[in-house]
Amino acid sequence: MKIIDAKVHDVRFPTAAAGDGSDAINRGDYSAAYVELHTESGLFGAGFTFTNGRGNEIACAAIEALSHHVVGRTLEEIFADPVTFWRSLSADVQLRWLGPEKGVIHMATGALVNAVWDLRAKAEGKPMWRLLAEMPAEELVNSVDFHHITDAITPAEALELLADDGGYAERLAVLERDGFPSYTTSVGWLGYPDEQVRELTRAAYAQGWRAMKMKVGGPISDDIRRARLIREEIGPDALLMMDANQVWDVDEAIANMAVLAEVNPYWIEEPTHADDVLGHAAVARAVNQLSEGRCRVATGEVAANRVIFKQLMQADAIQVCQIDACRVGGVNEVLSILLMAAKFGVPVCPHAGGVGLCEYVQHLSIFDYLRLGRSLDGRMVEYVAHLHEHFEDPITVVEGRYRLPAKPGYSVTFKPESIEQFSFPDGPAWR
Amino acid sequence: MKIIDAKVHDVRFPTAAAGDGSDAINRGDYSAAYVELHTESGLFGAGFTFTNGRGNEIACAAIEALSHHVVGRTLEEIFADPVTFWRSLSADVQLRWLGPEKGVIHMATGALVNAVWDLRAKAEGKPMWRLLAEMPAEELVNSVDFHHITDAITPAEALELLADDGGYAERLAVLERDGFPSYTTSVGWLGYPDEQVRELTRAAYAQGWRAMKMKVGGPISDDIRRARLIREEIGPDALLMMDANQVWDVDEAIANMAVLAEVNPYWIEEPTHADDVLGHAAVARAVNQLSEGRCRVATGEVAANRVIFKQLMQADAIQVCQIDACRVGGVNEVLSILLMAAKFGVPVCPHAGGVGLCEYVQHLSIFDYLRLGRSLDGRMVEYVAHLHEHFEDPITVVEGRYRLPAKPGYSVTFKPESIEQFSFPDGPAWR
Repeated sequence: MKIIDAKVHDVRFPTAAAGDGSDAINRGDYSAAYVELHTESGLFGAGFTFTNGRGNEIACAAIEALSHHVVGRTLEEIFADPVTFWRSLSADVQLRWLGPEKGVIHMATGALVNAVWDLRAKAEGKPMWRLLAEMPAEELVNSVDFHHITDAITPAEALELLADDGGYAERLAVLERDGFPSYTTSVGWLGYPDEQVRELTRAAYAQGWRAMKMKVGGPISDDIRRARLIREEIGPDALLMMDANQVWDVDEAIANMAVLAEVNPYWIEEPTHADDVLGHAAVARAVNQLSEGRCRVATGEVAANRVIFKQLMQADAIQVCQIDACRVGGVNEVLSILLMAAKFGVPVCPHAGGVGLCEYVQHLSIFDYLRLGRSLDGRMVEYVAHLHEHFEDPITVVEGRYRLPAKPGYSVTFKPESIEQFSFPDGPAWR
Repeated sequence: MKIIDAKVHDVRFPTAAAGDGSDAINRGDYSAAYVELHTESGLFGAGFTFTNGRGNEIACAAIEALSHHVVGRTLEEIFADPVTFWRSLSADVQLRWLGPEKGVIHMATGALVNAVWDLRAKAEGKPMWRLLAEMPAEELVNSVDFHHITDAITPAEALELLADDGGYAERLAVLERDGFPSYTTSVGWLGYPDEQVRELTRAAYAQGWRAMKMKVGGPISDDIRRARLIREEIGPDALLMMDANQVWDVDEAIANMAVLAEVNPYWIEEPTHADDVLGHAAVARAVNQLSEGRCRVATGEVAANRVIFKQLMQADAIQVCQIDACRVGGVNEVLSILLMAAKFGVPVCPHAGGVGLCEYVQHLSIFDYLRLGRSLDGRMVEYVAHLHEHFEDPITVVEGRYRLPAKPGYSVTFKPESIEQFSFPDGPAWR
């Protein structure tokens, strides 16, 4: 199956005005630098990287710049030597300089690589989670670029982690029956007034949610007031997570978490700058000790690549690994991170929200449970209520749990009418 | 002085075909995403970020996306509150997602911020080094965003590091007499055959160079053969530096440096992935021990921002700090890194080469010596022979030493005819 064209679309949703997605550092118009890889057969693969609005055109330009590594190849060729394919994008001798393996150019790699995997899953008639979960261990390991992570995990160790334990069918039955656990971030954006937070929290609790995340990183007096309000609504047993979106310095994070400890947070997410491995390690030591192990450090949504995740785990800097499906270089690199998380015993709770991120990451968590993590303990997929209506195969969440996707592919194919409506700058929504 | 327009140019030089700039991971057409900030007065500020060819249009698009934070402002406004200005670019609530503070979007920030400083230096009639070196300590400290680095350095510590020690005039006299030490990388690109390396080494030695850098990271048998050849030409006392351009894994770097120890390397640059702080620390421990402290670890040319540099220093991962003028967010962020290097006692040897990087960084090293590092011991600016003829105020290097730039500005203003000739894709050089 030959890829003959890459069609790139700049798709943006005007979410900033409503305060949705507002946190200590972002106020975004949720957007997708979206690509469809078309084949002679008529089947196409879809992928995107998520952005926050302005600059989505830069991500689109980066996808265009990389697309010559994809167009003209066959699916068979690509999957016969997946690491060579992956490196043709991530280690292009000229484009690599723009990262390396980080920021716009790496996000564009993620969009294209995910589109290739989507195409394969569609061609095989399987949802992505099933394509991955039914793949022989050798093929999964051969899909991973171990360059720069062999000091943390080797291909031999990866094979062992993926070995059949006889429990696959049972785990699959659990997911088919119960769905995959999740938590909601739709209650506590910084842009919402207190009363809206209270109403949303109450509604979410009534809908069955027992784990909720709020944004922190404003004035600490506001943070603790809102935290008490949410804790009041959800009672002592439900989980309350906090997300600082990197706004604090290291010492500030430690001091603020001492104040917020009063409401018994389950995790603090992005307590400081995303690149600060040593800083996260210092915060983790302090927060773990202060809470006698009840409060964890979580990060990953803007961790640039497998080398940052490697160090976060080597340094005991995180107790929750928040992979993102399209910040790193797509499925191949996500696999390397899932393997390291399994080796280091760090539960994976993917970053979602934005637009299409829930659609993406549900597949990754399901695969992780079936083949690597093998436990639901401490595993949750983030849930945000926005923008699912624009996808051909949107998520289904019932009583706070993701139902297994059944349609072929990676679930991120936009409806044509949504592309048209929200194309920037010429779609009707933006004119 | 009001900035009324930002003119962006995609300027590329066809260097890849000649093997110039070829190393273990790059093979580039040296390029600049170049911006001129025009004012009503007719004076303009010039800045650029360096890229490796393909993708330069992405960096240009990022400069365009950020330029609305600059156009319409006055120089006086910007320098009245430099951190607020700097954050308007580095922490734009939508564009930050594309980094954060890394890759294309941060390189674009560097281009624009440098252009603003160039404009100021031209307006005051001073070369950049003099503008900085004559600035009161308070103003320098007020130009630095300490966000996310206060666990390594505080404004109060920065003020102390910048305090007058009475030796300024003497240091300036040394530079005026002798120039600033440098080393050359023009001898040992991987793309050059052995005989070319031998001839270039011999010629460089004859021109007065006593410090030379070779590229490594090919087959180790090639690396050691070329290293012996260069050592043979330069004798036992001259310095031989090695640059692996990130190609090795951590354990591989340690093993290969055990082989290369035979030729007594002065430093190993980028032994592994640029983001791998812990990996660099492991290599540094091994290499320092193996060489009894003679061989250092150097890195920085693709270190994304001050947070990465902070950690490299906190973890004792580098003994040579290789700032780049336009990979990080321009002069303001470079100042933060120079301050940390001074505090941690790490000598600064800037990354140069490419196109225009020598022009930029000479100013930074001169300032560092005059106000912070205050020693020439172990300090060298990289020198590469290419492409200086395209600048209005090119570097002058005599007997292996940079002479002090005298013209106003940051020395990176392209000649109009070079912009025209090498504009991509429509300039005569590319048609």
